[in-house]
Amino acid sequence: MPVASSDELARSVIRRSALNSHTDVRSTHSAPVDSRDPETPSRVVVLASGSGTLFQALADAATGDFPACIAALVTDRDCEAEARAQRAGIECVRVTPRSYSDRAAWNHALTSVVDSYRPDLVVTAGFMRILGPEFLAAFPGKIVNSHPALLPAFPGAHAVRDALSYGVRVTGTTIHIVDEGVDTGPVLAQEAVTVGTDDSESSLHERIKAVERRLLVEVVAALVTRGVIIDGRKALIP
Amino acid sequence: MPVASSDELARSVIRRSALNSHTDVRSTHSAPVDSRDPETPSRVVVLASGSGTLFQALADAATGDFPACIAALVTDRDCEAEARAQRAGIECVRVTPRSYSDRAAWNHALTSVVDSYRPDLVVTAGFMRILGPEFLAAFPGKIVNSHPALLPAFPGAHAVRDALSYGVRVTGTTIHIVDEGVDTGPVLAQEAVTVGTDDSESSLHERIKAVERRLLVEVVAALVTRGVIIDGRKALIP
Repeated sequence: MPVASSDELARSVIRRSALNSHTDVRSTHSAPVDSRDPETPSRVVVLASGSGTLFQALADAATGDFPACIAALVTDRDCEAEARAQRAGIECVRVTPRSYSDRAAWNHALTSVVDSYRPDLVVTAGFMRILGPEFLAAFPGKIVNSHPALLPAFPGAHAVRDALSYGVRVTGTTIHIVDEGVDTGPVLAQEAVTVGTDDSESSLHERIKAVERRLLVEVVAALVTRGVIIDGRKALIP
Repeated sequence: MPVASSDELARSVIRRSALNSHTDVRSTHSAPVDSRDPETPSRVVVLASGSGTLFQALADAATGDFPACIAALVTDRDCEAEARAQRAGIECVRVTPRSYSDRAAWNHALTSVVDSYRPDLVVTAGFMRILGPEFLAAFPGKIVNSHPALLPAFPGAHAVRDALSYGVRVTGTTIHIVDEGVDTGPVLAQEAVTVGTDDSESSLHERIKAVERRLLVEVVAALVTRGVIIDGRKALIP
């Protein structure tokens, strides 16, 4: 389907069906009981800015018995991920910062758009923008990011390049809960990737992404099925 | 043999035989040719402050065909490592900071003691002191440290505790060239260790140490046999 602007989306979401307000992503003190109908897959909204390979991995996985469906892709720019959503028949909304007066206004629009899909989980998969306080407050403990390094090493937008520049022999990928910092939230999963002596940024990034795609799909399935217990910096999927 | 004070050592080293001044640890621009007699094992001095398990791994390895011998253990305090050296018949010298007027004086003494053994390689294996500029200048590019984390994550004296507090799922060990920073030098080798959900600091540290012992022995053998090419932050054992 075509990419909708956020205005179109604002109209279209009025037609959306009523939503289950529960969440599988539990805070420390929440009850472990999941009241959700097990026949209803959890709703995942993916945010992306680039090639969309992580989004594609989730879209490919979210078929058949997978416990989650991809409710929508939300982007901040014209990007390859949008074409992937179209091909997969997944709703796609672009919310471009330049259409808004300032960052707060853009964040407000982004929050509204994502919220309109009533996500159980929001996944930032190569989304190259900082999420503002309003967005974080709207989906507390329900935003998951995938980062191509073993955090806390190499946060930020150039993790693979930075790891190569440092000269590490092991890097990897981290799936974590998003908090107000840049790549600082509680870690959900990590997996190591060995750096070869002849690795370029692109060859290393490709190997990391292969691991990242698999791990992200596993973590999303685990989160929507078993929830997460967050205790300070510790995030445990029971 | 008994632990010698640095004064005793200063006397004893006069009797030491003449030394080969070459080094296997090459800087970027040095010739790749190794003029050392292949029959003569390289000389390694180990610095330790604690239980000495890394020292023990090197001492155990440095027998038979191993390409290096442990010329001495140097400590900064009464520690279990000293007893291991005695049992292994390896010379041991203690250089305690409180015997010196200030840090520079202690560093000078430490440099003299280590230099008296004419090391091809100096290995800091659980040595809990910062090496001063004089020491670093005396053994340029020839000091190797073993650290129980995947640097640059978790530098400093509490790497395992810090990694657990952060909530990482993957940590590991790093063998690196020592520079003027704290755990900042060029990386020679790294290996990942998975963190279990029920790991304590000691259980995790034990698993890291098992990997660290093997990796350190491998790196020392590789360094004294093949040398290292240091190019900025990149340290390549060819």
